[in-house]
This record gives sequence, structure tokens and C-alpha cells, in this order.
Amino acid sequence: MKLNILKDELNEAIQHVSKAISYKTTIPILSGIKIDAASNGITLTASDTDITIQSFIPLEKQDKTIIQMHKTGSVVLPAKFFVEIIKKLPSHYIEIEVSENYQTTIRSGSAEIQLVGMDPEEYPMMPRLEENQVISISGVVLKTMIKQTGFAVSNNESTPVLTGVLCNLKQKKLKFVATDRHRLATSTIEVDTDAELELDNIVISGKTLNELSKIIPDQDSVVHIVAADSQVLFKMESVLFYSRILDGTYPDTSKIISQNYQTELVVKTKLLTDAIDRAYLLSREEKTNIVKLAGEGERSIEISSSSSELGKVKEEIEVVKLTGEPVKISFNSKYMLDALKVIDSEQIVIGFTGVMSPIIIKPDQDVDMIHLILPYRTVN
Amino acid sequence: MKLNILKDELNEAIQHVSKAISYKTTIPILSGIKIDAASNGITLTASDTDITIQSFIPLEKQDKTIIQMHKTGSVVLPAKFFVEIIKKLPSHYIEIEVSENYQTTIRSGSAEIQLVGMDPEEYPMMPRLEENQVISISGVVLKTMIKQTGFAVSNNESTPVLTGVLCNLKQKKLKFVATDRHRLATSTIEVDTDAELELDNIVISGKTLNELSKIIPDQDSVVHIVAADSQVLFKMESVLFYSRILDGTYPDTSKIISQNYQTELVVKTKLLTDAIDRAYLLSREEKTNIVKLAGEGERSIEISSSSSELGKVKEEIEVVKLTGEPVKISFNSKYMLDALKVIDSEQIVIGFTGVMSPIIIKPDQDVDMIHLILPYRTVN
Repeated sequence: MKLNILKDELNEAIQHVSKAISYKTTIPILSGIKIDAASNGITLTASDTDITIQSFIPLEKQDKTIIQMHKTGSVVLPAKFFVEIIKKLPSHYIEIEVSENYQTTIRSGSAEIQLVGMDPEEYPMMPRLEENQVISISGVVLKTMIKQTGFAVSNNESTPVLTGVLCNLKQKKLKFVATDRHRLATSTIEVDTDAELELDNIVISGKTLNELSKIIPDQDSVVHIVAADSQVLFKMESVLFYSRILDGTYPDTSKIISQNYQTELVVKTKLLTDAIDRAYLLSREEKTNIVKLAGEGERSIEISSSSSELGKVKEEIEVVKLTGEPVKISFNSKYMLDALKVIDSEQIVIGFTGVMSPIIIKPDQDVDMIHLILPYRTVN
Repeated sequence: MKLNILKDELNEAIQHVSKAISYKTTIPILSGIKIDAASNGITLTASDTDITIQSFIPLEKQDKTIIQMHKTGSVVLPAKFFVEIIKKLPSHYIEIEVSENYQTTIRSGSAEIQLVGMDPEEYPMMPRLEENQVISISGVVLKTMIKQTGFAVSNNESTPVLTGVLCNLKQKKLKFVATDRHRLATSTIEVDTDAELELDNIVISGKTLNELSKIIPDQDSVVHIVAADSQVLFKMESVLFYSRILDGTYPDTSKIISQNYQTELVVKTKLLTDAIDRAYLLSREEKTNIVKLAGEGERSIEISSSSSELGKVKEEIEVVKLTGEPVKISFNSKYMLDALKVIDSEQIVIGFTGVMSPIIIKPDQDVDMIHLILPYRTVN
């Protein structure tokens, strides 16, 4: 293998795959990045077994030469050092040459680096996914759905399936669900796909989706989702992102979202967020994060919290509408803030169905995102 | 105590004193910020016993009313919560009222906060420093001297005096020295003070000077330094910064800076920094940070490092001048980079006095800053 390549293009591809590098792996070969140089360009691969990312760099982009390929071939290079040294090379042009025993020489300007490469044959093979079940979705929409649900996954590894986001497809509706048993977040969109196509119990780690989110470009782009038995592939323009599907059966959450509210509150999102944020500061000191919401009249609600050591925070905020029975409820303010932060609409609707039933939070304009929080049972 | 105050001004003063708050203190009263409201303004005080910071807010600034003082008095408020809640209050105007038992009410917009205050009489008294020995120095110059030396202090608490920077004044020359026994950094300036005034063995913790540096404004300002037996006071416009002087006698380092070089190298700072930075990336993986510098001809030197596992980095860089005997020396590249980063001049001078004698690094234009690094003894 011998080639010349532009530094910025190589660096960009490295940044993409670096999110999958396993620095603490027990499989030595996975501490490297695999480079496959073919006649049409080079492919970089990194994997931590849960995630595998591939990035392709073509020989040319928009008539600009990116790579001069002198000899094809493959090598695995030590990732940590490779990632950092490429960024810091003195020239915009890089020469990479692999000789016997995968000895690799990188030249750029006056710098010459000799690297001990590893045998690419030892690198795990990519899974082959049947591409007959493909969902195509706008990258920006996918990012938004991840943002709206990913924060609500469980951190508790004792129930691994809850550390993931459930992705369901039925009758062209793609639905993401995440819950840690104390709260739940869902986001649904309609996708343009075969009405017969269904996805069921596809659960992807919240951390993985977070990494995926960083790779999806902000500009208009399409992500093709290919699901197989144990793997999902997210295909972007020059990047392939493979993720393992989490084992286990996701609990059925479809019946816990009630539509019959005892009390319905409509309030300006920012007003409520800021008031709860202040009450949270105090409740946080008590470790419980308990904040109370109480409303009786039609014009305002009271947000309050207290700490035996520090004191009290109390605030009246104006409401747009408050209908139904008087409400007095305690909840985890951190969970409430997490939900409020991903709601973009100016006003939100909060539904209460009883002192011990989930609080329902949703934007006033959009029924495709719903958040649930279990209230606390508190005295008075 | 009862007063109204502008949020931004209070917040700015809190940010200054917050650098001295001790969140993990065994002295409960020090977990608070003391507020003293007098007829001319309010003073905030925070302390972790090593550092004490006071910030004063006058009633008016440039004809703008900052504080409306209704009733003077003092209170100590829980720092962590106080610092954060003030930032997040809904209005630009804040009312603070202290009633019986130091119960404090903070009102802003629709928010009302009750805080359990503490007795200000329990707060430690400020030391009184005799102000007959004062050095006045530009804030920007003081910041620069701290930057040029502070990084070289020892992290090893077993010799506490070396975790500080030595500040000496003699014949109007103020000199800062820091060393961790492997390297040494000095910076000297001439100050406009009484020629008789001398400071000897004043050693201030590197961490403390780092905190001080963050408080000194970037604009033109003067810092007055007042030294007493066990304390130094840095007086700024509205902030007083007290620091403990470290116990112990600082070693005499005045004789280790040789002026007779076997080899003298003049080189472009950026060229050398970038090359050593690349070699450092590899040497870091070996934990030793060893990088070699070798020069024989007149036109270039070679920077190199190697790792048994990863490989080698090698680079020729052009020199401006190389005079004297051939040089071949190994050093800790992290220490070299630390020194190079605080040198602003375009070219630097490096002096070698022998394989096991300190390497001397200084800007080519300025003799008031000198860095020393002990080389490594290495085979060939």
C-alpha cells in the first residue's frame, strides 16, 4: 500500500470513525484503525464491538484530487497515536507507505513517522446486512428524535434493555421510546416507506445513538436505516454506522399514556422552565430533587421547594390556562427539566390524572412527542 | 440588614470571591459567603484559610445607583446555593432582607427565596497588614510573570515550599522563581519602588497565584502587593486578595544558571515547538516523554523520539544559528513544551553546557525570562 492524501480529508474521516475506537479493549487489534486502500478510494474502520464505524474517502471530490493511489493494500494502525499525529502534521499533504511486516511510514513536510502496523487479516469482518428492509429518514429529524428521547434511558446496567431506545415501525409510523421506570419519553414521525414494513423490539443503546447523533451532518442529509437480526446499520453519505441491537424484550409502554386529565395546565415553556430551574437548585442540595407544583385558581400556579438546611424557594407563575380540579403534586425537578429542555414550542400542556399517576408533558402544538414523569408520594 | 441591589453587579462580585470558597471545609462557617452591608456599600468575603478574597460594591458607580441601602448589617449565606441562585434570578433587581436569627429573604421578580443565614460573628477576622511595604505593579505584567513561572512549581506536597513561586525583591528588581527540581522558570522585572525595600523568601502557592491571575483584570490596572510575616495581600480596584505565605526556606537557585555555553542554538520558536509537539505525542506513550535533539552542522537539527511498541518520529528542522560543539541530548519533551508555550518571541536561544547540565531556554530578545530543564541521561 502506498498513497498520497490531503490531510484535511483524512482527518475528517478519522474524526468520524474515532468515535468507535476502543481505547480500553481486551482485543488488541481493535485498538487500531483499519485502512483499506482500494482502486476507488480508502475506507477507514474502527470498532468497539458494540459500534463499528466505516468512513470512505474517494479519490476525487468535485473534480478535486484527494488521493493519489500508487499501490492498494490494507493495514491496521495504532489508533490513539494515529488520530493525534495526523492532526499535527506540518504539511497539507501526507504520504502513507506500508512495507514488509506492516511497517508503515508517514511523511509530511519534514516529518517522518515510522509506525508498527498490524495485520488487517486479524481485524473482525463486517456483518453483511440484507438490505431489503430500509427506512429512509432526514438526518435532522433523526437527530431531533434522538435528542427528544435519548436522555430518558436508564443508566442502570442491571436491566440492559432499558439503557436503550426502542425503535418501532408500524403503518409508516416510526416511534422512539425511552424509559428508566421513573419517566418516559416518546417521539413519533411518519416515514415514507413500504406500509408493510414493520420493525419490532429494535432497541439501540442510548450512548450509541448519542454518538450517531454527533456524526449525522447538520445540513440536509438522508440516513438510511437497515435493520437485521442483531445489528442495525445507519447509512450516511460517506459513513456507515453499525450498532448492536440490545438483547431482551422491551416492556410494553403503550397503555400507560392516559388521555383523560383531571387537570390540564397550559403554560409558557420558558416561564415554567426558569422557575423549576431555581427550585431545582435548592432541591438538589437535598439529593431528592423534589419540587412542588400547586394550582387552584385560573391564573397562576406556585412552584416551590425546600431544604431543611438551606431554606425555601417559592414562586408564583402566570398560566395560560388551568382547567379541571385543583392540583398539588411533587416531582423530580431534574426529570422535569430534562423534558422541558427538549421541547421547542413556546407553550406546553401538562396533564395530571391523579396524585400517583404519571404527569404528562407535551408541546401544545405537536402530539408526536410525549413525556411522562412519575410523581413523588409526599406528605401534605 | 435590608437592601436593594442590581443583579449584575452582585453577580460580578460573587464571581470574584467565589474562587476562595471552600466547599469541602471542616469549618462550617467557611462554606458561606459573608456579606457586610455598611453605609458606603457592601463587602463580600470568602475564604478557604489559604486564600481570602474580599470584593467591595459601592452604592454608586459613575452616577449609576447600584445599591439602595435601607438598613446596614451582616450575615453569612450558604455559598454554593447563593452563588448559583443569584445568577438565575428572574429580574435585574434583587432585594435582600435579613430578619431575626439571620433568616434571609431574597426577592427578585416573582421569586422569593428564604435562606438560613449564619452568624457573621463566627466568621474569622481578616488579618491586619501593615501597609508600609508596598510594591505597585501593572496587573498585566503580574499576570505574565505568573504565567511564565507558575507551571514549573512542584506538584509534590512532600516539599510544600516547592509547590510555590518564590517572589524576591532586591534593588527594585522583582524576581519570580519556580522549580520542581527537574526544571526551573524565572521571570524578572524592574519595579518603581523604594530602592531600600527588599522582599526575601516570600513563597506563594502556585495554585493561589493561578486563582489570582483569573481575578486580575485584562485592562490597564495596578496591583499593590503588601507583604507581611505570614500573609501577602494583593490589592486591586475593588478586590482584596489575601494569600498565606508557604512555610519553609526556598532553595538557593541563583548559581545554577550558567552563562558559558558549549553549544548555542538559535531557532524559530514555532518550528521547534511544533516538531517537539509531534515527537512528544509518541514519547508520551512510553510515559517517559523522552525526545532527542541532535545537531552537528550549521543549518539544521534533528528532533526524534521512539517507542518500542509504536514506532519512531524523526524530523529535521532548520536553525537560525548553531555555534559551538556538536550537541546530542535527551530531555522531557513535556517540560520543554511547557517552557516554549510561555515564550512569545519569534526566536529562542537554547544553551547547552554539557550532557548532564541544565539546558537553558530563553527568548532571543529578552533576558528577563530564563527556563532550565535537566536533561535525561540516556544510552547513546
